[in-house]
Amino acid sequence: METLKLGIAGLGRAFSLMLPTFLADARVQLVGACDPRARARAQFEADFSAPAFDDIEALARMPEVEAIYIASPHQFHAAHARIAARHGKHVLVEKPMALSLAECDDMIDACRDANVHLIVGHCHSFDTPYLRTRELIASGAYGDVRMIQALNYTDYLFRPRRPEELKTEEGGGAVFSQAAHQVDIVRLLAGSRATRVRAAVGNWDAARPTEGAYSAMLWFENGAFATLAYNGYAHFDSDEWTGWIGEMGQTRSADEYGNARRKLSHVASKEEEAAMKAAGTYGGDAYAPPSPTKADARRHQHFGPVIVSCERGALRPLPDGIVVYGDERRERIELEAPAVPRAEVIDELIAAVHGDIAPLHDGVWARGTLEICLAMLRSGAEQRDVLIGG
Amino acid sequence: METLKLGIAGLGRAFSLMLPTFLADARVQLVGACDPRARARAQFEADFSAPAFDDIEALARMPEVEAIYIASPHQFHAAHARIAARHGKHVLVEKPMALSLAECDDMIDACRDANVHLIVGHCHSFDTPYLRTRELIASGAYGDVRMIQALNYTDYLFRPRRPEELKTEEGGGAVFSQAAHQVDIVRLLAGSRATRVRAAVGNWDAARPTEGAYSAMLWFENGAFATLAYNGYAHFDSDEWTGWIGEMGQTRSADEYGNARRKLSHVASKEEEAAMKAAGTYGGDAYAPPSPTKADARRHQHFGPVIVSCERGALRPLPDGIVVYGDERRERIELEAPAVPRAEVIDELIAAVHGDIAPLHDGVWARGTLEICLAMLRSGAEQRDVLIGG
Repeated sequence: METLKLGIAGLGRAFSLMLPTFLADARVQLVGACDPRARARAQFEADFSAPAFDDIEALARMPEVEAIYIASPHQFHAAHARIAARHGKHVLVEKPMALSLAECDDMIDACRDANVHLIVGHCHSFDTPYLRTRELIASGAYGDVRMIQALNYTDYLFRPRRPEELKTEEGGGAVFSQAAHQVDIVRLLAGSRATRVRAAVGNWDAARPTEGAYSAMLWFENGAFATLAYNGYAHFDSDEWTGWIGEMGQTRSADEYGNARRKLSHVASKEEEAAMKAAGTYGGDAYAPPSPTKADARRHQHFGPVIVSCERGALRPLPDGIVVYGDERRERIELEAPAVPRAEVIDELIAAVHGDIAPLHDGVWARGTLEICLAMLRSGAEQRDVLIGG
Repeated sequence: METLKLGIAGLGRAFSLMLPTFLADARVQLVGACDPRARARAQFEADFSAPAFDDIEALARMPEVEAIYIASPHQFHAAHARIAARHGKHVLVEKPMALSLAECDDMIDACRDANVHLIVGHCHSFDTPYLRTRELIASGAYGDVRMIQALNYTDYLFRPRRPEELKTEEGGGAVFSQAAHQVDIVRLLAGSRATRVRAAVGNWDAARPTEGAYSAMLWFENGAFATLAYNGYAHFDSDEWTGWIGEMGQTRSADEYGNARRKLSHVASKEEEAAMKAAGTYGGDAYAPPSPTKADARRHQHFGPVIVSCERGALRPLPDGIVVYGDERRERIELEAPAVPRAEVIDELIAAVHGDIAPLHDGVWARGTLEICLAMLRSGAEQRDVLIGG
């Protein structure tokens, strides 16, 4: 089996969440990294016997790097993708793709000009339950998609943050960070181009002054409409409706109520909060490396309850199956347990880099998701429908 | 205890659903009725030793009638309310109040001129869990309401219907019939005047060509917004998220999947379907009188999952309690079991008729709900926000 030689730009939280995948997926070899934190670089060099730089240019110059996983803060995605492309490296860039459509266009152009693939992810729309639901819909067995409901209630806003993550204009908040998942999932399942958006956003905590919640309606060219709701204010938790299986597929306890807000209440300053976040990510004092047990999760990841209503049935993707509510009977399609979490990202990346197969989550696709997220912010501010792709 | 002498206009399904209340609540005495069906009249006369007419005028002329429960088909509500008021009878009219705002205005004027109370219900916003949640919010303990999510997935569209119930222009469909509940609940919990509506409606079954589904966003003067979603196409059933407790508070079985569509599939014509509906209501062949056991339900009625997010906590009304998700801890407020189902309607009616206490669900209130329902239909058709009460 040929391995993919991957460079990592940014050893922070996104990387920490992808690391179980990189460790468990024998197809991936981490051959270099960059990060501004010396401790993270030292950890990487020790763990992978590979160089870590403070500069993405140096990483991008490494001849053996085939692709770069850009997991730097949102505001650097565009610049880092351009640098990778300029050096002829394929790009896997974390969601959100960028902060503006102009940046997306730049990234798409840069990768096209360099003849490298651009894939945007991880995003929960890579999760097998959604991809399989999409296939079931595409089979035509249930007729056209009519209505989608997606909701997610989490403690998002009270997880430790760097200051810019609490500033919308710098790419912070639930619309850039969380709608990027939910909108992507809904678009994938609708199977049609979104044409308009109406949304409301919630920015309700003066100490964390960015969007912590939103509701949105989307309309699609095929006539389907969708309702999305997200609330990250750490009260109700919709994992209660997913059998207490968490976003990462992990078993959760109903007893952990209030933990995020409680931990944060001990933090005295923005600097301390940023340090707390850094401590919990790769190379930090409180960082717990992924254990084989954790990587061996029996369930797929998910992003909250989703119901797709079609003409002749409804489909409900779950972390371990898909429930199909047909006209006559309800059945449950069991999904095989994931051998490697988020292996779907590596599948798509390797197919593109080694097989030259156009990825589903390419730059044009992800630009479409950002366009909707930006339209949500504008719809909330301007109190009207915002047309998409007009 | 003084009893309320009630006349019944219409012995159909709405009456059948209220009958357990009338039988179990010793405060109510049924003293007369009217209905076009001779068998229903005969049954009423036998059951209650009271006259039943084919004409509401005759009922309204009865001196002993204090109030009339108008449970006739939607399109007759306005005319029947006017007749009751003209004869000095208080009015309890089923939801939806009427089919147009002009009709609502007429009804409000007629009752005001006659100095009688006008109450609109039953509606699920009378259910104790919602009323108690409203009190908790009004206590101020959780701060302002920010965001409400209400959803309900049922088999609504596949219950047996008379032809006009499948024609929107005659008051049929899920917006008139089901949003009347959901909008009323959401307004009550928001505690503020709705200012705008954006909606999409689903009318997807050519054999039942009225709205079977909708999604809507509402905005309120206090800054709160709400997302409502309803789907009555008999696929996913959201009672799954209410512990399989049904709308009437009854214990349901997950095994009854597909029953509504299956039963309807044996019906050959509209006439046969209307006859099937009549058979299942009061005086019909298949009508099962309420048993003491059924009336003794341990849970309150409900209208699907509702989450109210406030500044300092979220509240979730359930058929047997309210879960409060506070900043620090989650607690469950147990609700006493209802002695009489829908007793809240009788509470409000008797308080108005005998205590002259202004009802919560008065004509002006219910007109506000109809205005939003009509705005949903218009928003769906015109693809834009519709302003309310402007």
